Amino acid sequence: MALPLWKNLLQTTKERILQQRRLSLYNGAHGYEEELIKKKLQQFAGGSINLSKEDNGIGILTLNNPKLMNAFTGTMMVELQERITELENWKDGKGLIVYGAGNTFCSGSDLNAVKEISNSQDGMDMCMFMQNTLTRLMRLPLISVALVQGKAFGGGAELTTACDFRLMTPGSEIRFVHKHMGLVPGWGGAARLVQIVGSGAALQLLSGTARVDPEKALRLGFSEQTLSSSDETRALEEARAWLSQYTEGPVSVIRAMKKVVTAGRELPLEDALRTEKDIFGTVWGGPANLEALVRRPKHK
Amino acid sequence: MALPLWKNLLQTTKERILQQRRLSLYNGAHGYEEELIKKKLQQFAGGSINLSKEDNGIGILTLNNPKLMNAFTGTMMVELQERITELENWKDGKGLIVYGAGNTFCSGSDLNAVKEISNSQDGMDMCMFMQNTLTRLMRLPLISVALVQGKAFGGGAELTTACDFRLMTPGSEIRFVHKHMGLVPGWGGAARLVQIVGSGAALQLLSGTARVDPEKALRLGFSEQTLSSSDETRALEEARAWLSQYTEGPVSVIRAMKKVVTAGRELPLEDALRTEKDIFGTVWGGPANLEALVRRPKHK
Amino acid sequence: MALPLWKNLLQTTKERILQQRRLSLYNGAHGYEEELIKKKLQQFAGGSINLSKEDNGIGILTLNNPKLMNAFTGTMMVELQERITELENWKDGKGLIVYGAGNTFCSGSDLNAVKEISNSQDGMDMCMFMQNTLTRLMRLPLISVALVQGKAFGGGAELTTACDFRLMTPGSEIRFVHKHMGLVPGWGGAARLVQIVGSGAALQLLSGTARVDPEKALRLGFSEQTLSSSDETRALEEARAWLSQYTEGPVSVIRAMKKVVTAGRELPLEDALRTEKDIFGTVWGGPANLEALVRRPKHK
Repeated sequence: MALPLWKNLLQTTKERILQQRRLSLYNGAHGYEEELIKKKLQQFAGGSINLSKEDNGIGILTLNNPKLMNAFTGTMMVELQERITELENWKDGKGLIVYGAGNTFCSGSDLNAVKEISNSQDGMDMCMFMQNTLTRLMRLPLISVALVQGKAFGGGAELTTACDFRLMTPGSEIRFVHKHMGLVPGWGGAARLVQIVGSGAALQLLSGTARVDPEKALRLGFSEQTLSSSDETRALEEARAWLSQYTEGPVSVIRAMKKVVTAGRELPLEDALRTEKDIFGTVWGGPANLEALVRRPKHK
Repeated sequence: MALPLWKNLLQTTKERILQQRRLSLYNGAHGYEEELIKKKLQQFAGGSINLSKEDNGIGILTLNNPKLMNAFTGTMMVELQERITELENWKDGKGLIVYGAGNTFCSGSDLNAVKEISNSQDGMDMCMFMQNTLTRLMRLPLISVALVQGKAFGGGAELTTACDFRLMTPGSEIRFVHKHMGLVPGWGGAARLVQIVGSGAALQLLSGTARVDPEKALRLGFSEQTLSSSDETRALEEARAWLSQYTEGPVSVIRAMKKVVTAGRELPLEDALRTEKDIFGTVWGGPANLEALVRRPKHK
Repeated sequence: MALPLWKNLLQTTKERILQQRRLSLYNGAHGYEEELIKKKLQQFAGGSINLSKEDNGIGILTLNNPKLMNAFTGTMMVELQERITELENWKDGKGLIVYGAGNTFCSGSDLNAVKEISNSQDGMDMCMFMQNTLTRLMRLPLISVALVQGKAFGGGAELTTACDFRLMTPGSEIRFVHKHMGLVPGWGGAARLVQIVGSGAALQLLSGTARVDPEKALRLGFSEQTLSSSDETRALEEARAWLSQYTEGPVSVIRAMKKVVTAGRELPLEDALRTEKDIFGTVWGGPANLEALVRRPKHK
């Protein structure tokens, strides 16, 4: 017997919450009270995070606070979390482009908010809140690209490391300026940067606060490509075209591809192999696989 | 009192089985029934896997099914497992070259077999069978090289990642074509590729299915060298010469060297350090070490 | 009520011992008896390890046994441990340069000592002793550089991998010569080398014992820069200048920066993220952070 609709909805909501907890790093057991920090963040309003989901399975996530070079206000942190939840539930999604309005990426946190929460407990809560959100962004079954125009500073530089790839426009720069603020990364940017460029280069970028221009980023393997235009509309077009090389094909397969790579990146080899086997099981004998077997009479 | 011979043999067989289980990833506890899948694989016959063990401690493993570009039939999968067992028991082995007959590497699975097992349970069993075999190949105490001529596609591309090194002949290509078959890697190729080229490049190769020619492979650190000849005999000679740089020296030391690197590759740093200490203990004060101490009166 | 001074000292000593055990890999539980091996090592005297702590927070650690190309005698192993303890307790330290007297780095172990302890148990104890010391060196909250002049052979090559960076002077070379001694690395050099250059390059360097000159080291990402002078005084000056790019700034922040990178290097991603959060908590709202907030009225 089928469950009544309200029970189904309850089930779905419960599963969603469970999944969110599973993908997150912190919950009540870590002394982390999300509702409290959200309430506090709501007090620092300004800007927005917008999401548009295109028909081809590409999402466009925009940081929108151009007066402050897209610095994160408290409400933008809360909205980012909401948009990530939306992306987790977008079953047709294959790719994601993250970029900033007004031809610049993101200058980190809005210091007006930062000053108000510069006590220890609020700082830790904000840190856990943002790590949860960016860990969930990193684990989305979408191939994600940070499109860096202008400046990606501090928390903005950290945000780029939560994407699978970085594309930079001419004249843009990524800079981990935390030292100048008497800080170290706390949104997970250091841990992820070590994975992307290695621990030596990461220590140099973090403790030296060097400006990383497109050429240096390419050399470090921190960026994939330098786009030809720094005009927003054209840069977005170029980013879409670049990303489409990897998102073309059946939704289930593209999402599974991102998942096997996520496992390989996060887990010790044995665990990654076992996870690869489980993900393989979700596509083997599935519609896209059976169709391909009919189409091609030769070899895998 | 010494054990009678039959007890000794029993002991050895038991130890061998235990070791095999330890080196493998899946056994009965994972719902994996090896005998069942082997029986099924035996139904798809064709081709062979050949092993020749040379006097200098170099093994040559040949994929032999040239009519199908050395695609894996079911019996070839079973034979590969047997050859790996043979290599595990070859105490004089120091190196291994894996290559394909008929100037091409391997085109993946034989689709005739694949079609017959395209239900979920058989697929998972085949996947676990091949992951067990390739994990044991990767962990052999032999320095291993995939000699890539012609094409290494799909499962063939995955096989190259189970070797320590890849050498490519002019005009050859490695290509993860899984997406075109509605699949993702399942033989461990994704997890191992992330370790070799990093997660960014791995995601690009897997979701973009790009052709990796020798030049691109070198650039990615996926191949060590492009050989000068694509003639089979000459390419094998070149691969032997390349490998001999690393296999020259006492058997015990070469095998220990592979083991310390395997630990460094698979384990978190603390575990890798402890394993290095244990492996160091197997050569310290051993015959090769004592001989060297007599020979050289100076420093380590 | 405040504790009496002697109780405070006891507390501090106890904490220090606990911390040392936490940073080390081996203790009594691993069948490792430090006092026994130290007593044995004391029998092989010669050379010294010197430490000078400069006012700018840079420590200079000198291997001093130039008659034997700075080979490690037993007493030098013991002194290295003492100097590392001193560095762990140096709360103003930000950076460290490790170099060898007499224009050469280190030729490994003094073979006179090695011959005397070439039995299995002594070898394992020496191995655990050195792994403990070098693991603690690697984990120092100081940004560390091996300044390689002349030759870094065997254990000397291993020592360079315990530093965050390597700078080489013209004509210098690093060489893992262990195979020629019938050995593999045992001071942790293999495990750390895999992390620095990847498992493929590590296996080649270890099993091929190739000479790594400054150019090859740069290409492999094993060295950061080739200095212009091979004169000791000038090379030290150059190394100091190079290091100062990364050590300029508040002590607490520089040390925290090294700690987040250490976590990213040693731990699985989730653990590294949680550790980053804890380290972030030590600087957030701290003096350097509050000062910066006053100074800059804009964004993070």
